[in-house]
Amino acid sequence: MASRSISANCRKVVCIGRNYADHIKELNNARPKKPFFFLKPPSSILEPNSGPVLRPKGTTLHYEVELALIVGPKPLVDLSEGDEKGALDAIAGYAISIDMTARNMQDEAKKKGLPWTAAKGFDTFLPVSKFIEKGKVPDPHDVEVWLSVNGDERQRDSTGLMLFRIPRILSEVSRVMRLEEGDLVLTGTPKGVGRVEVGDVMRAGVRVGGKGVEEGNIEVEVAEKGGLFEYTET
Amino acid sequence: MASRSISANCRKVVCIGRNYADHIKELNNARPKKPFFFLKPPSSILEPNSGPVLRPKGTTLHYEVELALIVGPKPLVDLSEGDEKGALDAIAGYAISIDMTARNMQDEAKKKGLPWTAAKGFDTFLPVSKFIEKGKVPDPHDVEVWLSVNGDERQRDSTGLMLFRIPRILSEVSRVMRLEEGDLVLTGTPKGVGRVEVGDVMRAGVRVGGKGVEEGNIEVEVAEKGGLFEYTET
Ligand SMILES: [Mg+2]
Ligand SMILES: [Mg+2]
Ligand SMILES: [Mg+2]
Repeated sequence: MASRSISANCRKVVCIGRNYADHIKELNNARPKKPFFFLKPPSSILEPNSGPVLRPKGTTLHYEVELALIVGPKPLVDLSEGDEKGALDAIAGYAISIDMTARNMQDEAKKKGLPWTAAKGFDTFLPVSKFIEKGKVPDPHDVEVWLSVNGDERQRDSTGLMLFRIPRILSEVSRVMRLEEGDLVLTGTPKGVGRVEVGDVMRAGVRVGGKGVEEGNIEVEVAEKGGLFEYTET
Repeated sequence: MASRSISANCRKVVCIGRNYADHIKELNNARPKKPFFFLKPPSSILEPNSGPVLRPKGTTLHYEVELALIVGPKPLVDLSEGDEKGALDAIAGYAISIDMTARNMQDEAKKKGLPWTAAKGFDTFLPVSKFIEKGKVPDPHDVEVWLSVNGDERQRDSTGLMLFRIPRILSEVSRVMRLEEGDLVLTGTPKGVGRVEVGDVMRAGVRVGGKGVEEGNIEVEVAEKGGLFEYTET
């Protein structure tokens, strides 16, 4: 990748839903028989030190920490689900990300069969860490992702708990839409998601072999979003 | 815009749902109280003469002709809904587009409260015309969009029938996500959507003051998508 700016290189952000069993339970969701996914717009990406995350008026704002895969230069189409090597070869690097979600808007969308797009797609709804070189993550199914709010740990689990592992995820996505250089794939969030309020400070990161990876750190505050938007159920 | 390639300049495609009353009726949908929208990935864009549109195995493939707005260089944030001038100033040009939809996949997603992303996001699911210079469309609320299949006209209506006009659409979108240069905004489809089969040829276009605009023409065939994907309800 010419530049390491995650947002400048990104044309789509594909997010896997419900990929950790205990997270599915905490939201009372059905366990999917196969991976499903949705899009966040590249405009939602918040690079390190460019915060705050903005909470739209009237929304219940939730964090979801996730390991993000950054796609490399070779377009990925129709990866076989058992192709571990193809999956890892497609990955240029990693990032830690927070899939911010207006949960009450998402609940309404789910109830009405409407798209999740607005609930997931506000500006600042995707804080990311710096780019993590691929070599720093020997096995993406064996790292620990964590998130804290005001210093209290809220999420911490191993990526080994994913219901659908990375080759399966990339297979399901790439048989629908080709993955291109700089695209992000968010692999789902473990248990412990919850609400943040204006003034809260979120920190997130990743440990590999028990040790923190500096580039994977996120620290971002929550502030009120000004402007025209105000959520009211339609 | 440096280049007129619609796909090369595009980082997001925002699509308005249910924006023509007779189309809402034909799909037995509820009439929205305000505009809602979803995303197609830029990877779904099919430039002129790079067809065919690929029908994924097991899907009911529908066409939806739509007037697309192409966003200009000034980022659009929090447009007021009555700001006609601001809306038109934000538009760099237009295109005709076909929002291809795997209708049976979308129906399942709606029923289950899941994202519409896959149903709308396959590669080739967004044929577009060439870029139409802004000056060729004096009033985007007074053009006729049309689509034919194998020479039979299936859709033809005036954009004057939009339930939510362009300033309102751009206001609703831009209070959630900023619109950036090259982004596409699809303004919804009029009545007449329907199924296409492998071998069908779709044509679409736009008339301004009764006269066809050459750059707005689309002609594309439908072929079977090979590869791994096959739809089965989960
Ligand atoms: Mg998530
Ligand atoms: Mg979506
Ligand atoms: Mg449409």
